[in-house]
Amino acid sequence: MTTVSDKTGLAPGTLIHVGQAPDTPGRITAIDYARDFLEEFEVHRVEDLLPCRQRKSITWVNIEGLNNIGFIESLGAHFDIHPLVLEDILNTHQRPKIEEHEQYLFLALKHVSIDPDELAVDYEQVSMLIFEDFVFTFRERSDDLFQPVRDRLTQEKSRLRGNGVDYLAYVILDNIVDNYFSLQDALDIILESVEEDLLAQPGPETLALIQRVKRELIFIRRSISPVREILTELLRSDSPLIQEKMHVYYRDILDHAIRLLESIDAYRDLITGMLDVYLSSVSNRMNEIMKVLTVFASIFIPLTFVAGIYGMNFEYMPELKWKWSYPVLWLFFVLVPIFLLVYFRRKKWL
Amino acid sequence: MTTVSDKTGLAPGTLIHVGQAPDTPGRITAIDYARDFLEEFEVHRVEDLLPCRQRKSITWVNIEGLNNIGFIESLGAHFDIHPLVLEDILNTHQRPKIEEHEQYLFLALKHVSIDPDELAVDYEQVSMLIFEDFVFTFRERSDDLFQPVRDRLTQEKSRLRGNGVDYLAYVILDNIVDNYFSLQDALDIILESVEEDLLAQPGPETLALIQRVKRELIFIRRSISPVREILTELLRSDSPLIQEKMHVYYRDILDHAIRLLESIDAYRDLITGMLDVYLSSVSNRMNEIMKVLTVFASIFIPLTFVAGIYGMNFEYMPELKWKWSYPVLWLFFVLVPIFLLVYFRRKKWL
Amino acid sequence: MTTVSDKTGLAPGTLIHVGQAPDTPGRITAIDYARDFLEEFEVHRVEDLLPCRQRKSITWVNIEGLNNIGFIESLGAHFDIHPLVLEDILNTHQRPKIEEHEQYLFLALKHVSIDPDELAVDYEQVSMLIFEDFVFTFRERSDDLFQPVRDRLTQEKSRLRGNGVDYLAYVILDNIVDNYFSLQDALDIILESVEEDLLAQPGPETLALIQRVKRELIFIRRSISPVREILTELLRSDSPLIQEKMHVYYRDILDHAIRLLESIDAYRDLITGMLDVYLSSVSNRMNEIMKVLTVFASIFIPLTFVAGIYGMNFEYMPELKWKWSYPVLWLFFVLVPIFLLVYFRRKKWL
Amino acid sequence: MTTVSDKTGLAPGTLIHVGQAPDTPGRITAIDYARDFLEEFEVHRVEDLLPCRQRKSITWVNIEGLNNIGFIESLGAHFDIHPLVLEDILNTHQRPKIEEHEQYLFLALKHVSIDPDELAVDYEQVSMLIFEDFVFTFRERSDDLFQPVRDRLTQEKSRLRGNGVDYLAYVILDNIVDNYFSLQDALDIILESVEEDLLAQPGPETLALIQRVKRELIFIRRSISPVREILTELLRSDSPLIQEKMHVYYRDILDHAIRLLESIDAYRDLITGMLDVYLSSVSNRMNEIMKVLTVFASIFIPLTFVAGIYGMNFEYMPELKWKWSYPVLWLFFVLVPIFLLVYFRRKKWL
Amino acid sequence: MTTVSDKTGLAPGTLIHVGQAPDTPGRITAIDYARDFLEEFEVHRVEDLLPCRQRKSITWVNIEGLNNIGFIESLGAHFDIHPLVLEDILNTHQRPKIEEHEQYLFLALKHVSIDPDELAVDYEQVSMLIFEDFVFTFRERSDDLFQPVRDRLTQEKSRLRGNGVDYLAYVILDNIVDNYFSLQDALDIILESVEEDLLAQPGPETLALIQRVKRELIFIRRSISPVREILTELLRSDSPLIQEKMHVYYRDILDHAIRLLESIDAYRDLITGMLDVYLSSVSNRMNEIMKVLTVFASIFIPLTFVAGIYGMNFEYMPELKWKWSYPVLWLFFVLVPIFLLVYFRRKKWL
Repeated sequence: MTTVSDKTGLAPGTLIHVGQAPDTPGRITAIDYARDFLEEFEVHRVEDLLPCRQRKSITWVNIEGLNNIGFIESLGAHFDIHPLVLEDILNTHQRPKIEEHEQYLFLALKHVSIDPDELAVDYEQVSMLIFEDFVFTFRERSDDLFQPVRDRLTQEKSRLRGNGVDYLAYVILDNIVDNYFSLQDALDIILESVEEDLLAQPGPETLALIQRVKRELIFIRRSISPVREILTELLRSDSPLIQEKMHVYYRDILDHAIRLLESIDAYRDLITGMLDVYLSSVSNRMNEIMKVLTVFASIFIPLTFVAGIYGMNFEYMPELKWKWSYPVLWLFFVLVPIFLLVYFRRKKWL
Repeated sequence: MTTVSDKTGLAPGTLIHVGQAPDTPGRITAIDYARDFLEEFEVHRVEDLLPCRQRKSITWVNIEGLNNIGFIESLGAHFDIHPLVLEDILNTHQRPKIEEHEQYLFLALKHVSIDPDELAVDYEQVSMLIFEDFVFTFRERSDDLFQPVRDRLTQEKSRLRGNGVDYLAYVILDNIVDNYFSLQDALDIILESVEEDLLAQPGPETLALIQRVKRELIFIRRSISPVREILTELLRSDSPLIQEKMHVYYRDILDHAIRLLESIDAYRDLITGMLDVYLSSVSNRMNEIMKVLTVFASIFIPLTFVAGIYGMNFEYMPELKWKWSYPVLWLFFVLVPIFLLVYFRRKKWL
Repeated sequence: MTTVSDKTGLAPGTLIHVGQAPDTPGRITAIDYARDFLEEFEVHRVEDLLPCRQRKSITWVNIEGLNNIGFIESLGAHFDIHPLVLEDILNTHQRPKIEEHEQYLFLALKHVSIDPDELAVDYEQVSMLIFEDFVFTFRERSDDLFQPVRDRLTQEKSRLRGNGVDYLAYVILDNIVDNYFSLQDALDIILESVEEDLLAQPGPETLALIQRVKRELIFIRRSISPVREILTELLRSDSPLIQEKMHVYYRDILDHAIRLLESIDAYRDLITGMLDVYLSSVSNRMNEIMKVLTVFASIFIPLTFVAGIYGMNFEYMPELKWKWSYPVLWLFFVLVPIFLLVYFRRKKWL
Repeated sequence: MTTVSDKTGLAPGTLIHVGQAPDTPGRITAIDYARDFLEEFEVHRVEDLLPCRQRKSITWVNIEGLNNIGFIESLGAHFDIHPLVLEDILNTHQRPKIEEHEQYLFLALKHVSIDPDELAVDYEQVSMLIFEDFVFTFRERSDDLFQPVRDRLTQEKSRLRGNGVDYLAYVILDNIVDNYFSLQDALDIILESVEEDLLAQPGPETLALIQRVKRELIFIRRSISPVREILTELLRSDSPLIQEKMHVYYRDILDHAIRLLESIDAYRDLITGMLDVYLSSVSNRMNEIMKVLTVFASIFIPLTFVAGIYGMNFEYMPELKWKWSYPVLWLFFVLVPIFLLVYFRRKKWL
Repeated sequence: MTTVSDKTGLAPGTLIHVGQAPDTPGRITAIDYARDFLEEFEVHRVEDLLPCRQRKSITWVNIEGLNNIGFIESLGAHFDIHPLVLEDILNTHQRPKIEEHEQYLFLALKHVSIDPDELAVDYEQVSMLIFEDFVFTFRERSDDLFQPVRDRLTQEKSRLRGNGVDYLAYVILDNIVDNYFSLQDALDIILESVEEDLLAQPGPETLALIQRVKRELIFIRRSISPVREILTELLRSDSPLIQEKMHVYYRDILDHAIRLLESIDAYRDLITGMLDVYLSSVSNRMNEIMKVLTVFASIFIPLTFVAGIYGMNFEYMPELKWKWSYPVLWLFFVLVPIFLLVYFRRKKWL
């Protein structure tokens, strides 16, 4: 793993993959399509893409795995991509952002997935370059995240086939943002389980769980919140790559992003409330413990004292000689606890 | 029930009803009116509405129940409604919003009702499409929420009859926002009952109640707060559908929404204050318990020690032989507690 | 008393007095004045005001008591006042606001008074309509709030007589905002008494007081804070009713309002600090109690054990026969507590 | 002392000195200067200033003590100063502000000084009127706050002499804002002493000190924070009194003010952290106390019980007759505490 | 060391070095370069730089150590630098800022380094003056912070050599901001160690550490946060010194700064969460202690009482004579603790 501070001192624009090096080898696939044809092929060199440039078609190139630096450098050279953009694609500790360049739009986003059982959140940087008739997507992993997009492309009558790169970009973005909602579902499940814990038997591990959820919410928020800015900027910009009539679609993603962020804020408020409940349950338990101690001590300490009195060895203790002393004392031993128990019950301690 | 994440992967614009499927069958009614006539009829197919389109009249179509997807699709086709709008109407997990389209305005709002006894808050999405001479309202439930609007329409002399779709839309919106005030009344009742609990006998269930109120306030705020943005945007827009002279009415709703949001914020502050009171009452009770323990222990432990001394079996303990030892000791046993009780009373522990 | 939610379902613009019905009958007085004359008279019907309309004079009509709906309706008709404005005048649960209409300005404010002994805050809605040569003020109560304005009017040489409606409106507004400062004085007194309580003997009633002050501050802030927006909007507007040269006066009121709001925010911070002090004093008292318990228990429990040893009845306990055992033990009984007391004093527990 | 609410009901513009009446008599001095001459004289009547008006020179008039209302009224008349400005000069409970009038700029600021030993913060209102060739400063006290300015003026070659009123005003302002930094130094000292207290022996008086610092920070912030707005407005305005080339100087003061405000915010965060430390030290002390109690009680209570057993008077207790019972029991009395002490040490209680 | 308040009363623009006086003597080096040549030399007098002014080259002058006031004054005279800028360069308690002057841009930044073991954060002010073909950097220390820039300059083919002052300034800025990321790494390490402490054995020193981290985060944030404003202003300005095509580079630094600030905010949230964990662990430990006390006391206090009963010396106590009394009592002494232990285990106290 390479971290960002390892890059300190390097010339800006130096291409190094910063992030968790994936075990799987990278894979580059391209789909070249127009309304009436579709071709899918694997790409080995940038030159494989050049024929598509001639045709009046849209080409979506999906680069999975970021350790093929040679390919990315060559891509930069052929498509005249700014070195800082290439650097941002490879540096996966990037803040999600959008950049308008003359020939293309650059977007960097986070694909966030969660395993609710282990509360393990996984972040993957997904970058996108939108050219006039090319869309490049860069991913760290190889999985089926983009399968629904591919499926829809293969249907000849889908709206996707009849529209331009802006619609393709929208569908890809929408796919990523839609995935955030399964995040929300997972968080719902987790919060519910925290709540059950709180009702049942809250212990230090409940606190640890609350803190972990809080922490993950901080990081999830940080990954998702820039999506709002990105889309706002996209809608405000007058890039010729995004047609006016597409705005209604992008605004739809924006709405989803805002709703999601509001949910995350609500989750933070809820988890803070749960922390309050936990802390107060600790206090309540302390009260319980103290009540038991106080009841035991208050009942038996006075009685022990009385027993102590008649354990004294004075010669002149007339009561010791009386016949009824002992039974009367037993009566006392029985009545005092009863009286105290009634008193404590009145105080709602029992 | 269908949740949002079930939609993940579907093509954008795919029409599926997301939300709690209502048990009651849907019902579609239309009121076609002008200043001098009014006709109310049930709608079975979109074609039933076409005659109204010819007439110079205003038609209000109220669609109750969102599972009649066929009708909504057909509506979309006839009235040229954007597929994403249709999707938003059916997806009831929508954030309240406004969208200006060329031919119509689209509004999505939440109707919020509360059962103060059970603290059960119910959210229903109410969408509205405002065309030049059509207003469509889409609801999940079938109840008398719009009855006051209908009543006013039937009065021939009501201002409603003499005005356009903008006034009708205003009356419907006003009806929804006015209902929020009964929410406020319910919250007043609930907060008062929490306060009574706090004064009487606060227990863990008081805390649970406080947390539930806090939580519901978070969700209610989230549903109502976008109303402010919606109305601000509506007033700022120059849609020809809303006449300038109607602005004073919409501003009135805006004022109500702002006041309501301020109330909800005040409620949140109040409930936070109640949490403080609760937590401090737990501490106070602990103090009470500890005082009882301390008083009992401090009085009887020293006395027991003294009794223990004279319970020892040394051969040379002159006091054991003295005649007045025992009575003098009793005096001691009586005076020490009196002294300590006075001391504790001075400390305000008793 | 009528509440807002009772109005739910009524046609917008329906005139109903919402608020606490005053016991005293309403009273309507008018002062018609110009630089060289002044006439004060009671108004029974709107028609009484019509002669003033002809004259080149300024007329200030003060309506006290809002249950004379007939008069207000008639006023609306004669002066062409928008029905929603009339509704707002009568609905005293209004948020303070300003509305510019073509012929007039509408202002709604809160007059806030406080009884520092009982911490009883009283809110009264004061509405104002500013026409070209008419000023209407609407109040819920009949008292001498406006007496200083009236007094100044009767002085022939006062600046008030030589200026227009904008100056009259300013004087009335200034009068209301100046009254907020006695609020500030009252709050100072209340906060000081809370502080004294905290230093002396803080108990649950101190907490209750803190919470009440906090709560009242929330509500007072809500009533005063819109004054800032109102004045900012008034200064920004280019209503011909407020002359440019009057702006310096209105800005002065704005400054006062801002200063007041800052004071209220400071009070909220102070009261929060007091809550911290209270909570920590509860903890400190617990510490005190525990110290007493610990000192008593730590001294006497070991001694009791030693006494217990020599209370055992073993046949072979040589010490029991020794002559000096008992005095030596007494020495032990005296020295151990001294040692422990010194130890506890070192720990600053005593 | 006159307070603001005493003014309630007076005509706006009525001149009354609101503030702490100074014991020292007021003093009015003027410095009339140009690049090549400088004259300093005491002013008794406004008429004394009139000759300066003729000359092409800059006159700085410093009014110390605000009870000479006659002079200020006369000043208002001669220099055509708005009555509300005069009122603001005399009302020292003013919020710092700037006002642009046609002929002059009006500034009101707070001079804040602190006595770190007593944590006594002193606020003095300093007002300034900037005319084309006059600068008036109004102070409540008579001290050497402006001595550095005066000193620099007397140096013939100082930049001050060669520049206009805007530079003089800048130097005066800079003098006031620079004084805020000694405030910062004093706060540093105070916070350090609080921290030392926290490390040494935090008690209720530490909490009281923390609360006082917090409170003073609230008030200091309130006095300094408007300086930022004032300077921003001054820089944004296009008043001919402040030349463009002076902006760099004023921006410098603005930078200082921002830095100071950030420091105060940091102090607030620090003092809040100290409160957390204090509260947690109270909890820790409670833990200490409880540990002592628990150690004593857990060791001796079981032993006392065992001693109690062999203090029983049953006839058939075979152990009582055994020769080794007593020594064996002593062994037990020694081993059990050792075992428990080891156990508690393992738990890190000792 | 000179502090800011020592400057109070001095004429603005007086040159005094405010800050920690460095032990090392200052050092001034210059690099004069163009695409095809590079000369590095030490500078002793400003006049040494004049030849560079003639040539069409870029000169980077790096001034290390700020006590050579003579040089800086002379620099100001030769390059026509505003006296306040010179003052800001020497006053190292400056808030980071940017100032556009006619001939040059002035930037002041903080270089922040941290020693993670000691949590010692070190701040150094780095100022920069950007002229048309000169860049001056002013530092307090002499170290290899700028070594990477120098290295890159010496490579003839580096992009640095072919670009203007704006690119040089960018590389220097980038170097400073990149260093902030090692700060982030250090903070990661520190936070992890705090977390380990919290899991292992949190004590008062953990709290002290948490508070120190919190405090350092406040100060780090204060030093870094203005970088965002500086870059935003730089990008918004239309200074001819920064070419349009360089904006993409500066925006890259801006992105880094924003990401860093978000991280610091996240750290603050995390450390607050850790404080919660710490406080709750204190409460939990108290619970543990109380449980031990309660278990011991609840078991042995009743037993001691029973033993006390049969230690009484009444003549008529029939049980004392019975043969099985003692064994039966032992059974009781064994069964009661077992019963209580089971009960406490059920309550999860053991």
